[in-house]
Amino acid sequence: MGGAEDKFDDKVILSTFVQLAGGREAKIAIVPTASSIESAGERYKALFLGLGANEAQVVYLADRADADGDAPIELMQDATGIFLTGGNQMRLSSIVGGTRAMQIVRQRNAEGAIVAGTSAGASILSSHMVAFGASGPTPRQRMATTVAGFGLVPDVIVDQHFRQRDRIGRLLALVAANPSLLGMGIDEDTAVLFDHDGSVEVVGRNSITIVDGAHMYSDIFQVKGHGNITISGATLHVLTPGRRFDLGTRQLLDD
Amino acid sequence: MGGAEDKFDDKVILSTFVQLAGGREAKIAIVPTASSIESAGERYKALFLGLGANEAQVVYLADRADADGDAPIELMQDATGIFLTGGNQMRLSSIVGGTRAMQIVRQRNAEGAIVAGTSAGASILSSHMVAFGASGPTPRQRMATTVAGFGLVPDVIVDQHFRQRDRIGRLLALVAANPSLLGMGIDEDTAVLFDHDGSVEVVGRNSITIVDGAHMYSDIFQVKGHGNITISGATLHVLTPGRRFDLGTRQLLDD
Repeated sequence: MGGAEDKFDDKVILSTFVQLAGGREAKIAIVPTASSIESAGERYKALFLGLGANEAQVVYLADRADADGDAPIELMQDATGIFLTGGNQMRLSSIVGGTRAMQIVRQRNAEGAIVAGTSAGASILSSHMVAFGASGPTPRQRMATTVAGFGLVPDVIVDQHFRQRDRIGRLLALVAANPSLLGMGIDEDTAVLFDHDGSVEVVGRNSITIVDGAHMYSDIFQVKGHGNITISGATLHVLTPGRRFDLGTRQLLDD
Repeated sequence: MGGAEDKFDDKVILSTFVQLAGGREAKIAIVPTASSIESAGERYKALFLGLGANEAQVVYLADRADADGDAPIELMQDATGIFLTGGNQMRLSSIVGGTRAMQIVRQRNAEGAIVAGTSAGASILSSHMVAFGASGPTPRQRMATTVAGFGLVPDVIVDQHFRQRDRIGRLLALVAANPSLLGMGIDEDTAVLFDHDGSVEVVGRNSITIVDGAHMYSDIFQVKGHGNITISGATLHVLTPGRRFDLGTRQLLDD
């Protein structure tokens, strides 16, 4: 989810998440670690219960000792859906990275539970997470910094608040650095569903932007300091809600 | 390999590589893409043949079209050893990342071929590659930038020219950002062998430094700009040649 998803009116995205987690059978675990707002977890708990989930629990992980304890395992091992709130993604990577809590998130996802994140919570799900960076349409060297994420989505780099914060330049620079990663920018109030068949689907109100660098030329390896990067031949996709895209062939699916 | 490996005297590291690749049966493929020195590939070819390899070929990949062509597949599909030279690791990631050449390197490694790199060629082998950064013993925010590597060594981040270029600060900062990665700094004229059983062994003249952040406290998620990062409780290992270390338990092996 690209952040700022609708929490009050039609709630399409959050409602889709609850349905995919099992609807009336859903057991949701909420990880509010990224957030500095104390009530963030409780607010989502009320929302998910209001949307018909059977159960919703908040998993508080304030430090690495919490994340390495038994509580996250107990709270997440039966979850059918795991939700990571927004906030500061460096809190998620530096507090939860490499702990038992991260392992159980990975394990539940491999076992079929749906794992969703909004804003910071979306960024952490890829193997390479955008930690911080600048905005603007021109790709520049050192424009964005990545650190390791949780690795649920291995060949994709996710950026969020995408159009709203003008992040196309940094996504182009990140893909130019190693085009083995597919760049995916998610607008606010918009989400991407990753299916098990290797396709994605757009849900929500706005668009997602995909940058494929397989046929890209870039001089990024010789640009010094914070200089502008030349990019040529990047393949761009801007997909509206309902559209599906194949991550393997990197093509729009028509259906 | 941490860079600047001995090419003239006892050649312990390069000789070990040839032996592990099959000795007199070895078929070595050399990828000089990182290097700006035209003769780098030919120089290693002469060295590997001089050390008894049966065959050594240079795989020239000047741009993404080369790396997506048939030549790298033909030259690497029977290789028992693949060697990536030093130079500029951003050339490797931005030119070879996501191409058929990268895929065949991954595939041959999965099939049992030994893949080795020195300096830039070592950095590219991990999933998260140090692209560039500053030196010094104090970890600071934005001190180093990582991009996606080739991912042969998934849970480790490798730095090189380690003690010689005073890179402990940036390795600590990189591990603090997400302690799921084990930090590994390789000194010059020194190499790390990754065994299939999940252990590593040090070879060469100097040491490797390992940073384990599993029990680390860090305030990295709240440090602004280029500020200093507080780190507490990092586990440090400095291992000399012949020492073995278990990557799973993160402990020294005594044998």
